[in-house]
Amino acid sequence: MKRTSRVKSKILVVDIGGSHVKCKMTGRRNHIEFVSGPKMTPGEMMNEITKITVGWGFDAVSIGYPGVVRKGKIVRDPFNLAPGWIGFDFPAAFGRPVKIINDAAMQALGAYKGQKMLFLGLGTGLGSALIVDGMIAAMELGHLRSGPKRTYEDLVSEKARLRLGNKKWRKKVWEVVERFRNALLPDYIVLGGGNVRHLKRLPSDTRLGGNADALTGGFRLWEDGV
Amino acid sequence: MKRTSRVKSKILVVDIGGSHVKCKMTGRRNHIEFVSGPKMTPGEMMNEITKITVGWGFDAVSIGYPGVVRKGKIVRDPFNLAPGWIGFDFPAAFGRPVKIINDAAMQALGAYKGQKMLFLGLGTGLGSALIVDGMIAAMELGHLRSGPKRTYEDLVSEKARLRLGNKKWRKKVWEVVERFRNALLPDYIVLGGGNVRHLKRLPSDTRLGGNADALTGGFRLWEDGV
Repeated sequence: MKRTSRVKSKILVVDIGGSHVKCKMTGRRNHIEFVSGPKMTPGEMMNEITKITVGWGFDAVSIGYPGVVRKGKIVRDPFNLAPGWIGFDFPAAFGRPVKIINDAAMQALGAYKGQKMLFLGLGTGLGSALIVDGMIAAMELGHLRSGPKRTYEDLVSEKARLRLGNKKWRKKVWEVVERFRNALLPDYIVLGGGNVRHLKRLPSDTRLGGNADALTGGFRLWEDGV
Repeated sequence: MKRTSRVKSKILVVDIGGSHVKCKMTGRRNHIEFVSGPKMTPGEMMNEITKITVGWGFDAVSIGYPGVVRKGKIVRDPFNLAPGWIGFDFPAAFGRPVKIINDAAMQALGAYKGQKMLFLGLGTGLGSALIVDGMIAAMELGHLRSGPKRTYEDLVSEKARLRLGNKKWRKKVWEVVERFRNALLPDYIVLGGGNVRHLKRLPSDTRLGGNADALTGGFRLWEDGV
């Protein structure tokens, strides 16, 4: 990886999800989370974070954002939150340097063990990222159409799981994993996201991401100057 | 990019296609090509190349191979040629160091101008590769299913063009380009392959690859130690 940034010692990692926002910091054992949802604006999120992190004394911030980020800038409002995210000045709001990355990409970075890795995040939707020799490519593979009426995300989302039941949903997950494996040719696949708990077995060359991946990814953003 | 290989001065680039094999060398103005096809084995190809390149005096070889290559090794026989490619000892056959890469990836490397680039090759089939900050990821996006009976390749292949006619085929190409743009989020897309001559206009942030891209990519393989 390129090493272009000064290593920061105390990083606050903010992992923004459709149902909760998680805040974690270097050296603190537990994370703190609060409820997000379709009405949360970035300003409201910042109010919560400011309250929570009083006295935490961090030097820099990593944000995992559930939407499209290009060159460190949010370029689309998120599906599951209120609008107003494009152009919001996070460095000013935090008073510290901030790096923003797609949430699946941040988790992928935390799970990365070299070579060519495909990350698929099974949650409300289907997150995705590819890392090639340390270089991260955030993706939205879930939005690719898999048929006349459905996207790949529609096959394995939380909605699909509730509609199909766990058994059929698991079958779909395997199918989608194999399709993406054949299309993107990774050396291995990491499955993350809350819904991995509903999986039983794993396809070959596939492993589960860990709970701490987003945190680890947020730290690595500053270590490695991604 | 990583620079791990000694720069070789005279490179022979062998671009293996389903209808022709092209041989080009540093400093030679023209390439020489010969017919390939579903009966060509690697041994037969080597016989032709040996005849053609008498007196060319090259130091190293780059091969663009129309199939899956993993860590410099051919792992699947090609769709459009005879079998026998997996495990074939090209360095022994050439008596020189050889680097093998997927053909679309080699062309992509030749067209690459930085950042995150998606390459789509419109030929007999649909080739694809992504380059992220200099790191190449060969892909087989064309083999992803776009519906119950078709893959993305089926929508824009040469067969599709002959079936649909140029006008409808061009519409499909635009559609597939936009789908992959939204799924892989590249900074720009390069369209290569013989069938780009049937395109009229280009989508935004999209440009045409050049005829010399495969050659340039073959040279870069040795410059940059990919």
